[in-house]
Amino acid sequence: MVICNPPNSPDEGMTMTAGRLEPLVPPENFAVVEGGIYRSALPIPANFGFLETLGLRSVVYLCHEPYPSSNCEFLASRGIRLFQFGIQGGKEPSAIMREHAITRGLKVLLDVRNHPVLVHCKRGKHRTGCLVGCFRKLQSWCISSVFEEYQMYAAAKVRPSDLMFINGFDVSVMGLYILAIMYRFHCCNSHSRRLKF
Amino acid sequence: MVICNPPNSPDEGMTMTAGRLEPLVPPENFAVVEGGIYRSALPIPANFGFLETLGLRSVVYLCHEPYPSSNCEFLASRGIRLFQFGIQGGKEPSAIMREHAITRGLKVLLDVRNHPVLVHCKRGKHRTGCLVGCFRKLQSWCISSVFEEYQMYAAAKVRPSDLMFINGFDVSVMGLYILAIMYRFHCCNSHSRRLKF
Repeated sequence: MVICNPPNSPDEGMTMTAGRLEPLVPPENFAVVEGGIYRSALPIPANFGFLETLGLRSVVYLCHEPYPSSNCEFLASRGIRLFQFGIQGGKEPSAIMREHAITRGLKVLLDVRNHPVLVHCKRGKHRTGCLVGCFRKLQSWCISSVFEEYQMYAAAKVRPSDLMFINGFDVSVMGLYILAIMYRFHCCNSHSRRLKF
Repeated sequence: MVICNPPNSPDEGMTMTAGRLEPLVPPENFAVVEGGIYRSALPIPANFGFLETLGLRSVVYLCHEPYPSSNCEFLASRGIRLFQFGIQGGKEPSAIMREHAITRGLKVLLDVRNHPVLVHCKRGKHRTGCLVGCFRKLQSWCISSVFEEYQMYAAAKVRPSDLMFINGFDVSVMGLYILAIMYRFHCCNSHSRRLKF
């Protein structure tokens, strides 16, 4: 079984029910964005066994609604930090609020001290798709590939306003933040290769 | 830009054309399977700039056809090792040949000395989908989530024979191989966490 950190015992990360190993159930729309960055829909309790195998250090939650109490309990019991940057769920969320939330979400993703990190909204389609889309722009992906990935998760629910937002998002606003991280990790003759730029 | 290894200069990994930085073009159907494992359709020369940013150590190619000469040249120039385990491209490939190829492909994926590794066939749908599906079974994913991921990449081209193959694939045949790798890396009080089990 491939997970982020080797388990201490062969069975760690599996759900044990009545002495039997149960298969792991990833959240809906789950995928790996990069090593240490995951995306999905809102996890339900049936997914907690799977999430344990990821060894998460943090979660970025992009909805306005309070985080479900069962999810709060799961995170608290595993020492996982929750970052909530709420974006309205409709087709036309406030532009300023969305840009603010996406920028803050990107900062969390870029800082490997938060990894492994799971990004999710409710269905893992639109708000999560916007954040991942902007992240891909930071990675210099061409815009058609960014849109193709967005569409793969949004399926029949593609929102033109999301595509316009991703296309118009100015990644240069992240420049100073990236420089600050690079300085923090690389200025003092540190040869650690923790920062994945 | 997030890549596997930090570049030596800020522009490394970007395609420079006439003094201008060009956006990176991932291959069709590109995705991250796990940290260090990627999947896609057959890369074309326009994708080579992107592939460079992944710092690939190996490629698993699942077609019978000879590897295109431009791709061979790219791999050779970057010291990337090619593993070719050919499976026929039709709807009903030979069962024995497919099982043999998938088993050999899994062995390459499981050995982190081959990472970062890119798995691809022609379109990144069926043969690649089978290999990734069996890899997910090794990760103890429930079969419905394995199928959901397969369908995301196969889109309208889902092949029932592929789903039956994945469902029937006996991951226990990998048991001895996994034990051999674990023994090799962990037997001598080595505390390296290279092996991601």
